[in-house]
Amino acid sequence: MKNQHPLSVYIDHTLLKPASSKRQIEQLCNEALEYHFKAVCVPPSYVSFCAAVLNRSEVEIATVIGFPYGYHSTASKLTEIYQAAEEGAHEADIVIQIAALLNGELQVVESELDTLINACKKHKLTSKIIIETGLLSKEQISAVCGICAKYQADFVKTSTGVNAGGAVLETVQFMREILPDNIKIKASGGIKTAEQANTFINAGAKRIGTSSGLQIIGVS
Amino acid sequence: MKNQHPLSVYIDHTLLKPASSKRQIEQLCNEALEYHFKAVCVPPSYVSFCAAVLNRSEVEIATVIGFPYGYHSTASKLTEIYQAAEEGAHEADIVIQIAALLNGELQVVESELDTLINACKKHKLTSKIIIETGLLSKEQISAVCGICAKYQADFVKTSTGVNAGGAVLETVQFMREILPDNIKIKASGGIKTAEQANTFINAGAKRIGTSSGLQIIGVS
Repeated sequence: MKNQHPLSVYIDHTLLKPASSKRQIEQLCNEALEYHFKAVCVPPSYVSFCAAVLNRSEVEIATVIGFPYGYHSTASKLTEIYQAAEEGAHEADIVIQIAALLNGELQVVESELDTLINACKKHKLTSKIIIETGLLSKEQISAVCGICAKYQADFVKTSTGVNAGGAVLETVQFMREILPDNIKIKASGGIKTAEQANTFINAGAKRIGTSSGLQIIGVS
Repeated sequence: MKNQHPLSVYIDHTLLKPASSKRQIEQLCNEALEYHFKAVCVPPSYVSFCAAVLNRSEVEIATVIGFPYGYHSTASKLTEIYQAAEEGAHEADIVIQIAALLNGELQVVESELDTLINACKKHKLTSKIIIETGLLSKEQISAVCGICAKYQADFVKTSTGVNAGGAVLETVQFMREILPDNIKIKASGGIKTAEQANTFINAGAKRIGTSSGLQIIGVS
């Protein structure tokens, strides 16, 4: 395919800053179309606009739920999921209740993920659960990966890119070891080069979240 | 009153980081009780816990809606407001649709604030509208202050403390000039000393949002 770089199919072409303009989001969509990125990852307020711009293309629309702090109520995250699906999103990148996990309140994390992952299935959204590995111990990563597996999330995603350090190779390798084969990994946060992207893909990541997509495929 | 510093009554004692632990939030509440701060400002996920800790005290519970990016849907913000009220919050610090304001889509900002400010009134929550002045031109500040006045928000609040610079004296003075007398101002973001707090209060701020409350009243 014209302009198809081998890494394109892995890339969520991402712009999530709160001041992102309509023009910037339009450009993001046009770049995703031109270079055949897997998806754009955009604020919820731009989903319907992206659906109009990307109309009938193969580029998927991912949006974020409870982003970036994750401490919004389950009910409000659910409302975001419904609206995202209705407005044309294909994928939902959902931040967990980070503080609850850190407090050891696993049942809070589990109960919410049960609700939200099922809502995604019902609305045919790919679920990508952002666990914010940079704030977690190995035991906490293991616990939340177990919950994601139990409720059959589509992806576990390493990081928001906001609250802590981004993707770390050893962490992705660890997640790949402990997750069942059918649960995919999205590595995100601080990935800016093709070399980094390839390293994470070799470690088992099936998706790369990045705002440096053009640089990664060598056109910027 | 014992331990009552003259600035205490202005202070929203604030802890909004996504990794804030239950123990830290409990300490925040206990400090607010001991030093008679006006309110604690906490993540939505901790409102019911704070209601239990602060039971029957005069310290109010403020929480945040659509925080810190503001680009969650109006419906999900509304869900957060309902839940906050139900769980015992007294005040709602609501982030506007920042990108819509920057895009010049004033009707999006207005329609949402109409809905959310009215929901606060209905649920007897003090509404504090965070406009993120650090990202706005004077004209944009003027436009959104006009909307806040039209729908009778209780407060206009300068900043999230996350997305841009915090409170600026000239900006608070400008807001005080253009807002009707009955709409109050909360200055927040980067206020760490009694001198700064007094400067903003002299400029017309009726509330100070800060994570340096103890330092401001000289006990830390």
